[in-house]
Amino acid sequence: MPFVLHEYALSGNCYKIRLTAAHVGLPLERRQYDILKGETRTAEFLSEVNANGRIPVLQLGDDFLPESNAAAFYVADGSDLIPADRFARADLLHWLFWEQYNHEPNIATVRFWRTLVGEANLTDLQRALLPGKVAAGEAALALMDAHLGRSDFFVLDRITLADIILYAYTHVAEEGGFDLQPYPNVRAWLSRVAADPAHIPITA
Amino acid sequence: MPFVLHEYALSGNCYKIRLTAAHVGLPLERRQYDILKGETRTAEFLSEVNANGRIPVLQLGDDFLPESNAAAFYVADGSDLIPADRFARADLLHWLFWEQYNHEPNIATVRFWRTLVGEANLTDLQRALLPGKVAAGEAALALMDAHLGRSDFFVLDRITLADIILYAYTHVAEEGGFDLQPYPNVRAWLSRVAADPAHIPITA
Repeated sequence: MPFVLHEYALSGNCYKIRLTAAHVGLPLERRQYDILKGETRTAEFLSEVNANGRIPVLQLGDDFLPESNAAAFYVADGSDLIPADRFARADLLHWLFWEQYNHEPNIATVRFWRTLVGEANLTDLQRALLPGKVAAGEAALALMDAHLGRSDFFVLDRITLADIILYAYTHVAEEGGFDLQPYPNVRAWLSRVAADPAHIPITA
Repeated sequence: MPFVLHEYALSGNCYKIRLTAAHVGLPLERRQYDILKGETRTAEFLSEVNANGRIPVLQLGDDFLPESNAAAFYVADGSDLIPADRFARADLLHWLFWEQYNHEPNIATVRFWRTLVGEANLTDLQRALLPGKVAAGEAALALMDAHLGRSDFFVLDRITLADIILYAYTHVAEEGGFDLQPYPNVRAWLSRVAADPAHIPITA
């Protein structure tokens, strides 16, 4: 029974799951939805795939798993990408929750607004939020850079799911207008993650 | 070596960890910070406790674990609160990530603004965000109510960490002005969670 990824290919949240699957060698069947046309808000999608109206969703037979970081955790579970040590496993989850609260709502949202929606098409409220999201995205990059000044990867001295999750939107942050030049440790870490033999690009 | 919870007692995010600890019988030493006075943004807090300037943080000796849901996962890990089944474990994480993305930024933030900051003291931007956060909070409650119409608890047919995490801010949603009357399944579930012999209130 193939695993099905319900996704929008340009979304970093969807890429997280494909990149994790590449690391563990899991094939995925992919179904595309155009989020700009509201294809994840149809009655059929809401009742059959995700009541929350969002992608990605990982389908395992009759079971559906929303939330990118939970789906990626499922794919990685049992592999070296999830540390066996109890504290390291929780520390990995700390970075995944931090990503969804402090990184994605800023860096991914600014990228989405600037590249897919277009600044001219933003609502007044989105326009008012933009400077705060840019500042919070820069603060997230600075926090990552400081951490990566002390270790080569986020949780262990090798790649784990935390690096894959944080790579997804960090490596396209410049598409949203974030300059990575002030963050040399982040840039070196991006290169380390991309040099892994199992790595695939977001366009794969 | 005692576990130390760096916290602000009224915060639902901090209560999550105390409630999880009560369920597994783990004693916690507690240190209070007044977030309204910026006590989690001091140079000492940023360098020694959490570079992200937020509570709760769970301290285990020299190790610090930020992010409420990651700290609660650490406390629950190895107990019945985390399902042994791989899919159920990922489904639990899906609810924890959903809580941090769709529930907490709306229901907890509106409660914080209305009860601790005060509507009169909100910035213009916060005031502009308020109606959207109220609507998103109501949508989160409606999604929970629909799910709880199909099962007594969120992931298994008994309490897990997902129920503890979602209980924390849902049970005080009315303090933020959210009316729970339209959500009978949520109200019945709140009573089931609170009836557990291991339960403690947020004021404990």
